[in-house]
Amino acid sequence: MDGVNKIEQALDEALSRAEASGAPPRLASALRYAVFPGGARIRPRLCLAVAYACGIEDAAPATAAASAIELLHCASLVHDDLPCFDDAATRRGKPSVHRAFGEPLAVLAGDALIVLAFETLARETACPPLRLAGLVLSVGRAVGMPLGIVAGQAWECEPQADLRAYHRAKTGALFAAATVCGAVAAGHEADPWRDLGERLGEAFQVADDLRDAAGNAEDLGKPVGRDAALDRMSAARELGIDGALMRLDDLVDEAVASIPRCPGASELRTLIRIEAQRFLPKELVRVAA
Amino acid sequence: MDGVNKIEQALDEALSRAEASGAPPRLASALRYAVFPGGARIRPRLCLAVAYACGIEDAAPATAAASAIELLHCASLVHDDLPCFDDAATRRGKPSVHRAFGEPLAVLAGDALIVLAFETLARETACPPLRLAGLVLSVGRAVGMPLGIVAGQAWECEPQADLRAYHRAKTGALFAAATVCGAVAAGHEADPWRDLGERLGEAFQVADDLRDAAGNAEDLGKPVGRDAALDRMSAARELGIDGALMRLDDLVDEAVASIPRCPGASELRTLIRIEAQRFLPKELVRVAA
Repeated sequence: MDGVNKIEQALDEALSRAEASGAPPRLASALRYAVFPGGARIRPRLCLAVAYACGIEDAAPATAAASAIELLHCASLVHDDLPCFDDAATRRGKPSVHRAFGEPLAVLAGDALIVLAFETLARETACPPLRLAGLVLSVGRAVGMPLGIVAGQAWECEPQADLRAYHRAKTGALFAAATVCGAVAAGHEADPWRDLGERLGEAFQVADDLRDAAGNAEDLGKPVGRDAALDRMSAARELGIDGALMRLDDLVDEAVASIPRCPGASELRTLIRIEAQRFLPKELVRVAA
Repeated sequence: MDGVNKIEQALDEALSRAEASGAPPRLASALRYAVFPGGARIRPRLCLAVAYACGIEDAAPATAAASAIELLHCASLVHDDLPCFDDAATRRGKPSVHRAFGEPLAVLAGDALIVLAFETLARETACPPLRLAGLVLSVGRAVGMPLGIVAGQAWECEPQADLRAYHRAKTGALFAAATVCGAVAAGHEADPWRDLGERLGEAFQVADDLRDAAGNAEDLGKPVGRDAALDRMSAARELGIDGALMRLDDLVDEAVASIPRCPGASELRTLIRIEAQRFLPKELVRVAA
């Protein structure tokens, strides 16, 4: 999954438009702070990798979709870290947005990033307008109600929730948007690519639970042990460390097996196996080796 | 400005999709609570009125744009009412969303409504896809950075702000989206319609400041005197009641004069003068009469 420079540049361009003349300076700073420096950029890289595997001629629509997905991911982190949710003090190795800029600007930064994501789609995909509706709907499905990130987060406010449904909404949905939008941006059908994203999203969430249960705060740049502290649903808590590791292997196998026929399928399969190794906390890679 | 039934029905359909199978029930309830029963629905009615004045054949794209604008307006009310901003206990005559559902669901309800707005545009305007990019960009400009609602709200977090720039972003931008999107949905150019929305938005904000300074909480369904209590920028506080009333008259005159040539221009001018009267708190209409 290459394209990191392309993604960083596209994110920078999107933010530059948000920071244009007339913008309130503190919110503009909060937006940039929320997006740079990034994490692994795994969702936008997945989106671009799928688009390349499908065989794109013009990278612009796929890059726009990848940027939109990363902006929405950043928005969800900013809102999830708020005092009324996780009350996280740090994120990506620095103070969370609400700790650095205050709660009002953190709420607004999340809102602004959601809007910027849709603007980015509409601006960059203006060339093939017939694909825009598909991209907006795929992205909207991934972040909104009834089955997107926001719905996933809302399951934490329900008295009862199914762990897999919760993860599918909270993490799987945006991974599914990454694979689906990569395909749609390349002019391919959406549905055959949904499984790949959903499996990878679930794998990523299981790995995230494992990192929270067995990882190191310094390596991760965020606190660990939050699921237990907040009595939150977690695969590591439900299945144990070994059970969660087995589940992760199964999910990656299923993901790889689901890749539809396309010009770059073989390279994509290899890439995904390599990336999946990077999901795991260092400690557990050693244990599993 | 008719079309109220059309708007209520379109909003209901949008919410029904958000509430579909698999949705977390409490967030689904919070969304509906935030949108129904509505206020005056002035922005979506303005959007439809402009589209009809431009002479539409198919009302679907304009209705979708009108619904998207109202969903975004509702989202902004939910977030503005949060404890970290206005900490408003009531809205539209009932407890605010965070008082009724808690702060986490209020944050998520705002987010979900923003996403639903863009999905609504993409779903309903799929027929004329060439107009979708224009609608998404116009709506995005109205709600995001650097000049939309979110930017307007963020000026409250800056040490210094210009009152007119603040109002233009916080209120004018979404009114401008209403007129611009009405025109774009009808296949007309956007720019000639921006002035009308901006002037009406500013007029509405001045009227809102007057209601806060001189209105009655029971009539309004929300607390009054909040601007003074929170030491917030307000036309009534800056210009005095009489000065603000004069400013309101000027703005409505400018709005009416700005209406571009179109088949229904004359009816639209009349409608806007009638609606402008409804902006004012009853007490001030009597004083001004």
